[in-house]
Amino acid sequence: MDPLPRIERCLQDALASACAEGPPRLAGAMRHAVFPGGARIRPRLCIAVAMACGDDAPRAAEAMAVAIELLHCASLVHDDLPCFDNADERRGQAAVHRAYGERLAVLAGDALIVLAFEALARGAAAAPARLVPLLATLTRAVGAPHGIAAGQALECEPRVLLSDYQRAKTGALFVAATVGGAESAGADPAPWRALGDRLGEAYQVADDIRDVLGDRAMLGKPSGRDAELGRPSAAEALGLDGAIRHFDDLIERALASIPTCRGAEQFRALLEHEAERLLPAELTSLAA
Amino acid sequence: MDPLPRIERCLQDALASACAEGPPRLAGAMRHAVFPGGARIRPRLCIAVAMACGDDAPRAAEAMAVAIELLHCASLVHDDLPCFDNADERRGQAAVHRAYGERLAVLAGDALIVLAFEALARGAAAAPARLVPLLATLTRAVGAPHGIAAGQALECEPRVLLSDYQRAKTGALFVAATVGGAESAGADPAPWRALGDRLGEAYQVADDIRDVLGDRAMLGKPSGRDAELGRPSAAEALGLDGAIRHFDDLIERALASIPTCRGAEQFRALLEHEAERLLPAELTSLAA
Repeated sequence: MDPLPRIERCLQDALASACAEGPPRLAGAMRHAVFPGGARIRPRLCIAVAMACGDDAPRAAEAMAVAIELLHCASLVHDDLPCFDNADERRGQAAVHRAYGERLAVLAGDALIVLAFEALARGAAAAPARLVPLLATLTRAVGAPHGIAAGQALECEPRVLLSDYQRAKTGALFVAATVGGAESAGADPAPWRALGDRLGEAYQVADDIRDVLGDRAMLGKPSGRDAELGRPSAAEALGLDGAIRHFDDLIERALASIPTCRGAEQFRALLEHEAERLLPAELTSLAA
Repeated sequence: MDPLPRIERCLQDALASACAEGPPRLAGAMRHAVFPGGARIRPRLCIAVAMACGDDAPRAAEAMAVAIELLHCASLVHDDLPCFDNADERRGQAAVHRAYGERLAVLAGDALIVLAFEALARGAAAAPARLVPLLATLTRAVGAPHGIAAGQALECEPRVLLSDYQRAKTGALFVAATVGGAESAGADPAPWRALGDRLGEAYQVADDIRDVLGDRAMLGKPSGRDAELGRPSAAEALGLDGAIRHFDDLIERALASIPTCRGAEQFRALLEHEAERLLPAELTSLAA
């Protein structure tokens, strides 16, 4: 069963509670940051792992998925600010700071970070013993020293290892999705960590490749930005062919790391579908 | 017993875990935002209420106090950004965005918000039944629709009630301090809410008055900024004399709302001392 409608409904519920009252323009900026969504790959991954692990506390799994997506959206809003990427567009519409101004973009990002923790606490209230590890997983993925904020901050350091940058800026939240999916279902998260790590890296490599090949329709944002902004990029480090081979290798290793579980076959099919979506064959043929 | 050394030690521990590894400049910006501190009035209030309520889970009370102070520091870092107050100084030193640049100021604020939830989850792990209400109290105080981010966002709305603005931007975190102090000690938080509300408003009114009277040494930042930025201010709305009378009245009502408890007398003395610190008699005599 496709978990996307379930995810969208839970995101709508979370935003409704935060936006029903209070400053209308802040509410507008928060909604603009979350809807319409992208592929929602992180929350879908979280729910898919929870289902593969039995999904015995569906509200906790949904809350973790929602928290992860809200944190992802918050990071995009702040990444797009003039002092970082100064992006005009995101997901095919005006970036939040273009639509609502810089001040509300800063505040919408802040409020979405807070809302993520609120949604998790509320959804996992019925399973409080799982709340503590879920919170630890989530904070590790987004804060310092190894989460999204740290990854973004590496852009301000003089020398950076590409792998450190990608692992913190992108990989950490994918790991939170697989580990958190297992934790929300009361399963041992350890076997799911490598899968999140490899998928996160594959996702980032695919993004770097698409940035060069310029599939604007798929990106929903202008291409060629990495080189323009001097950002670390796999396409730049490995060359385009090397980056595509690296992507294929990461997907192979991700498939090989799916833990033995009832839903393994379904999970495998999902990953193969996702890999083709991330880097369509017709796109990579352009590189040949 | 003065809780300040206990608070400083806990803040140091929280920062140490976030800053030991990872990007050094982000770690520097985070430390710069938290040390040296101001009066630490919110965490002191939280610990004082917890002690008045028996303080039977001191680690939970400390964690709530630390979380509140980290969120306060994060809000100051983002408030000082060029798109908001464009402040040069804070707590007598360069504002974070002046010392580390705008990008690291945005990220340090984000990472401090995340660290607040991490510290709370870790400190309250031994009392997980208290973690759920503590998280709800904390998120309500800082997010949308009624917390700090919402209060700051009211500056972007065409018409604002001064009381709404102050309650969200300042009052909410004072309420979290009193309510959270009680919750961390397993006590009923309801009787402590009015106290936090009144103290928060008194604190904001005192800040508005000092902004006019120009006690730069105490503010640790330039004065006259409210009028310059067209921000809602009690001194502007009520006149200087009216604002001072309002402050005195709020402190009287705060004192009257101290719940019956073993530590009531001690708590009363603490509040009277704090009121004099917030608005010294020698300063208000200047207004006569």
